[in-house]
Amino acid sequence: MNINTRTDLAVEAREMLSREVREDIPGVIIETNEAQSEEYSITRVNITTPQAEEMMGKAQGKYITIEAQGLRYKNTPLQKKIIGVLAQELAGLVGISKNKTVLVVGLGNWNITPDALGPKAVEKIVVTRHLQDMLSPELKEGVRSVCAIAPGVLGITGMETAEIVYGIVSKVKPGLVIAIDALAAASSHRVITTIQLTNTGIHPGSGVGNKRFGLTEESLGTPVIAIGVPTVVHASTIAMDTISALQEHAAFARYFKSMENLADKDKQVIVHQVLPETLGDLMVTPKEVDRMIADIADIIAGGINQSLHPNIDYKNIHMYLH
Amino acid sequence: MNINTRTDLAVEAREMLSREVREDIPGVIIETNEAQSEEYSITRVNITTPQAEEMMGKAQGKYITIEAQGLRYKNTPLQKKIIGVLAQELAGLVGISKNKTVLVVGLGNWNITPDALGPKAVEKIVVTRHLQDMLSPELKEGVRSVCAIAPGVLGITGMETAEIVYGIVSKVKPGLVIAIDALAAASSHRVITTIQLTNTGIHPGSGVGNKRFGLTEESLGTPVIAIGVPTVVHASTIAMDTISALQEHAAFARYFKSMENLADKDKQVIVHQVLPETLGDLMVTPKEVDRMIADIADIIAGGINQSLHPNIDYKNIHMYLH
Amino acid sequence: MNINTRTDLAVEAREMLSREVREDIPGVIIETNEAQSEEYSITRVNITTPQAEEMMGKAQGKYITIEAQGLRYKNTPLQKKIIGVLAQELAGLVGISKNKTVLVVGLGNWNITPDALGPKAVEKIVVTRHLQDMLSPELKEGVRSVCAIAPGVLGITGMETAEIVYGIVSKVKPGLVIAIDALAAASSHRVITTIQLTNTGIHPGSGVGNKRFGLTEESLGTPVIAIGVPTVVHASTIAMDTISALQEHAAFARYFKSMENLADKDKQVIVHQVLPETLGDLMVTPKEVDRMIADIADIIAGGINQSLHPNIDYKNIHMYLH
Amino acid sequence: MNINTRTDLAVEAREMLSREVREDIPGVIIETNEAQSEEYSITRVNITTPQAEEMMGKAQGKYITIEAQGLRYKNTPLQKKIIGVLAQELAGLVGISKNKTVLVVGLGNWNITPDALGPKAVEKIVVTRHLQDMLSPELKEGVRSVCAIAPGVLGITGMETAEIVYGIVSKVKPGLVIAIDALAAASSHRVITTIQLTNTGIHPGSGVGNKRFGLTEESLGTPVIAIGVPTVVHASTIAMDTISALQEHAAFARYFKSMENLADKDKQVIVHQVLPETLGDLMVTPKEVDRMIADIADIIAGGINQSLHPNIDYKNIHMYLH
Repeated sequence: MNINTRTDLAVEAREMLSREVREDIPGVIIETNEAQSEEYSITRVNITTPQAEEMMGKAQGKYITIEAQGLRYKNTPLQKKIIGVLAQELAGLVGISKNKTVLVVGLGNWNITPDALGPKAVEKIVVTRHLQDMLSPELKEGVRSVCAIAPGVLGITGMETAEIVYGIVSKVKPGLVIAIDALAAASSHRVITTIQLTNTGIHPGSGVGNKRFGLTEESLGTPVIAIGVPTVVHASTIAMDTISALQEHAAFARYFKSMENLADKDKQVIVHQVLPETLGDLMVTPKEVDRMIADIADIIAGGINQSLHPNIDYKNIHMYLH
Repeated sequence: MNINTRTDLAVEAREMLSREVREDIPGVIIETNEAQSEEYSITRVNITTPQAEEMMGKAQGKYITIEAQGLRYKNTPLQKKIIGVLAQELAGLVGISKNKTVLVVGLGNWNITPDALGPKAVEKIVVTRHLQDMLSPELKEGVRSVCAIAPGVLGITGMETAEIVYGIVSKVKPGLVIAIDALAAASSHRVITTIQLTNTGIHPGSGVGNKRFGLTEESLGTPVIAIGVPTVVHASTIAMDTISALQEHAAFARYFKSMENLADKDKQVIVHQVLPETLGDLMVTPKEVDRMIADIADIIAGGINQSLHPNIDYKNIHMYLH
Repeated sequence: MNINTRTDLAVEAREMLSREVREDIPGVIIETNEAQSEEYSITRVNITTPQAEEMMGKAQGKYITIEAQGLRYKNTPLQKKIIGVLAQELAGLVGISKNKTVLVVGLGNWNITPDALGPKAVEKIVVTRHLQDMLSPELKEGVRSVCAIAPGVLGITGMETAEIVYGIVSKVKPGLVIAIDALAAASSHRVITTIQLTNTGIHPGSGVGNKRFGLTEESLGTPVIAIGVPTVVHASTIAMDTISALQEHAAFARYFKSMENLADKDKQVIVHQVLPETLGDLMVTPKEVDRMIADIADIIAGGINQSLHPNIDYKNIHMYLH
Repeated sequence: MNINTRTDLAVEAREMLSREVREDIPGVIIETNEAQSEEYSITRVNITTPQAEEMMGKAQGKYITIEAQGLRYKNTPLQKKIIGVLAQELAGLVGISKNKTVLVVGLGNWNITPDALGPKAVEKIVVTRHLQDMLSPELKEGVRSVCAIAPGVLGITGMETAEIVYGIVSKVKPGLVIAIDALAAASSHRVITTIQLTNTGIHPGSGVGNKRFGLTEESLGTPVIAIGVPTVVHASTIAMDTISALQEHAAFARYFKSMENLADKDKQVIVHQVLPETLGDLMVTPKEVDRMIADIADIIAGGINQSLHPNIDYKNIHMYLH
């Protein structure tokens, strides 16, 4: 594995390619929303060919990235705005019949703070599937059937997340699965500030917890939307970035003979010296990650709720909450 | 519904019958372990006929009750003893091939302290199913395949617990399901101090959270052992008990004309006056219920672990823990 | 101690007196706000003489009770209204210079759900004392100096709450102490639905945790406002109420010879039979007490914040939050 | 501030000095316990002169460091051993009359996982001060008076930790204060695996939360022992280490002209590029830091308990626990 591509974000996968390459990858369509406010930006990456899939290291499909540096700070007006943007992008990404049930799955380990995004978001999802029989025909029209679960991780349950979700899907038969997951970014400034939506589902090896099996339309027989937020950068990425910064910074040219030729293998020797592998996974997170995860989980759940229940008045949404 | 039979315990269901009746119910076999220490007692109730089922209001099958008043207090030696007793009784109740997987299910709502017994116990179950492929053949012989989940409740997931468990069982195909649940008792002295095991599974209407569907061999296609601990008494039971105590206490005979004839309907008028139904379910719990639930959850998990993994040295059991 | 006066509410202490007595207790002034909406009511009890203090079993001073049955349910508009009412009543109860610091103290044990009201409310208090040096003179004018602590209980710290608070007060020298505490009510319909404010402080024996020492102006040298919400009814109160309901209900007269003469001593025999003392304190709480405590703690903190920081725009209050 | 000395450990402060210097700093006495097992090591650093204090950047006094790489893993036998070592070293560091009270203070913010060590350890301290009046004279002889508090941090309370502790100390008058704090290390392999004890107390700028005021004998009028465990490495330290590793690694000499002369100022340019300051404090922690903090907090509390209550049988220690 190339140690410096530890990112789950398609926008970063593209940035990591050399400048000449990334400007024009056949089969990758990039679109940046020009009409955006300064507070946030939206980037759409569409990977349309197997060759593009291989170059990017990401499955074919659509990736939407919402970025807002202000999400690191408690800022209710921005949070409300991003909830609306997320709801809209989600609705645009998937067409689903009003009569079908949606299953929201919160991936990750609730005992590991930066991996707990999915479980925390699921707590705030407005579930309604069990109310369908009680609703009058008129109300039923306006309230979509939604159910939700945080299935836990392999080390906690002894079962692959994919097994549990497969079992539930085969019984509940939803028309769509939305999977929420904590991601790893390549750059610390994307931590907590970026939301990625994709219609490709969850693929093996992704996420803070490194899934062993995927959750995709192919494996579940149901379309899967994945919503992810980077909550960590691997510590090795910081070390690699430092070396790259040294190499690239013109002002330091005088120190080097031929730093540009520093081989990947040599870089890894340095990284392993600074971060011995015996220590297990070392993560870089903001000091206040506990609070930030709670805030961004509210935003993810808010966006999903607004998208799935457009007719519920947001002020009264609490009435439907457990 | 008869308001004064709000108990999930077979031993209490029997005690509630009038003295003449309970001494000799056809089809109910009672056995009390005489050789017990003073610290705890074991009672076995076997309901063997449909008539007995109806009289007792409990499904046909075996009910084992372990009682130890000392369980209310932090008391490590007694806790260890009860873990051993539970492991032994569990092993006696079910014969299961070493090669089959066991699925442990923690029922109840983790957001409601006295209903959180199941989820809390599941956290301490030693899960091993995911390790099977990594174990050497010799080790594999000694480590049974165990997996575990706390699926949440209807109001949290929008799905019946029974649906989720059914989905998982159909995918994972365990040879046995063990379901852990918080129960309601009729008498406050049984709260936290009593453990009931039964091979009848979980039936609708039982538990603190009042299940709407059951988890039984019939519904899942797999044998189901239920392990329950009463964590609450319904407040209405306290009121009913007070009336009964007044009626039965000889010293108070002088106050009454004909208290014995106080009709059930009249009793309920009193109870509804003291405990208006608009208030929702009122529960009686010990003040320190948070700590007590944590302690008894450890005991339940300890008993299950010892029963399922008899060859794992208890001192090293932590090595297998997530 | 008279077993049936286990209430911390002045309005209930008054109701417990026999009808003739309570209508006209010398030195007790009652005022009920007539102009109230149907959603809530405000009652003001003023105990003005030592004789009234003895009859009521409550210290001399003012007691304001805000009652709203709707507080049991998630209901954001009502919650906002009650926050406003609480802020206003609090401001009316105490005149304090803008230049003095206010210390908010959350009493109770965070490990015991119904006793955790104080600690949970303190988490949401907008503390500003440490920001005073950073504020510009104009802003400083509008932001009062507030600090807050949940000191824990005797069994957790080995120190009386009163000792810790005394130590802090002598160092920090606030101009006012506001103490938040979970109370016991005599009637289950007051649980979570009633807020009591008093200028008498906290007295020994009060609260769910039964304080051994008080927090009063006399002991601390600083005025003390106490804000309390009943979160439990003692189980013995339910039993006593049942007996009283039997006695008082005309329809049951035919059953009794002379139930009216049932002595207090005899009542206690019954209660102890139903609720053996060996079980420790048994509490009656709503099943959803965990959620309800969280909601009412938000209201208490909201009322205090609005009262102490009237110039902070409520929408931006989060900016000041830790 | 020199960006590469962000360590709270005296052993690391010494290691950072250049080789020639550190071998013989006047006024610094080093002692490494040779008779140790391979599982752990003990290093004693004694800073005895003002000059040594300045060179080391650490206050005069004794620093004892216990290191055990195995502490990262659940390993009950090693944990018990380290509890014993900690108890012994603590007893050796401080002579305190049996009749004096000890106040244990858990510093740090319970809402930030890697800063929560102190509050979590305090939860497990066996407090006995409030039991002194109940103990028989014989028992009293064997049970030292201990009290404990986690006062919270400035952003939560609006009060400096030092103010709260000063207030409590002036009321409770302990003979010794033991302060527990989460530290920052310079090297990731010391995270969770190292315990530092010192008789110098807590100094401004130290700890994960960067104290603004100290807790020392000078400020409190009572001796202060500080016990700390590194739970994070600042992300900037990883970047600095990477640069140093590049410089020092012989195999890379061919790449550089004059890397040895890379100025500190230039290094900081690189670090700020990789880790923009706008992101706030970025911390490097093990992925499983939540579990590791819980485990090491148990060890710290266990060592303190064993040291302060040598006559309490460890098996029965739970009886004294809240």
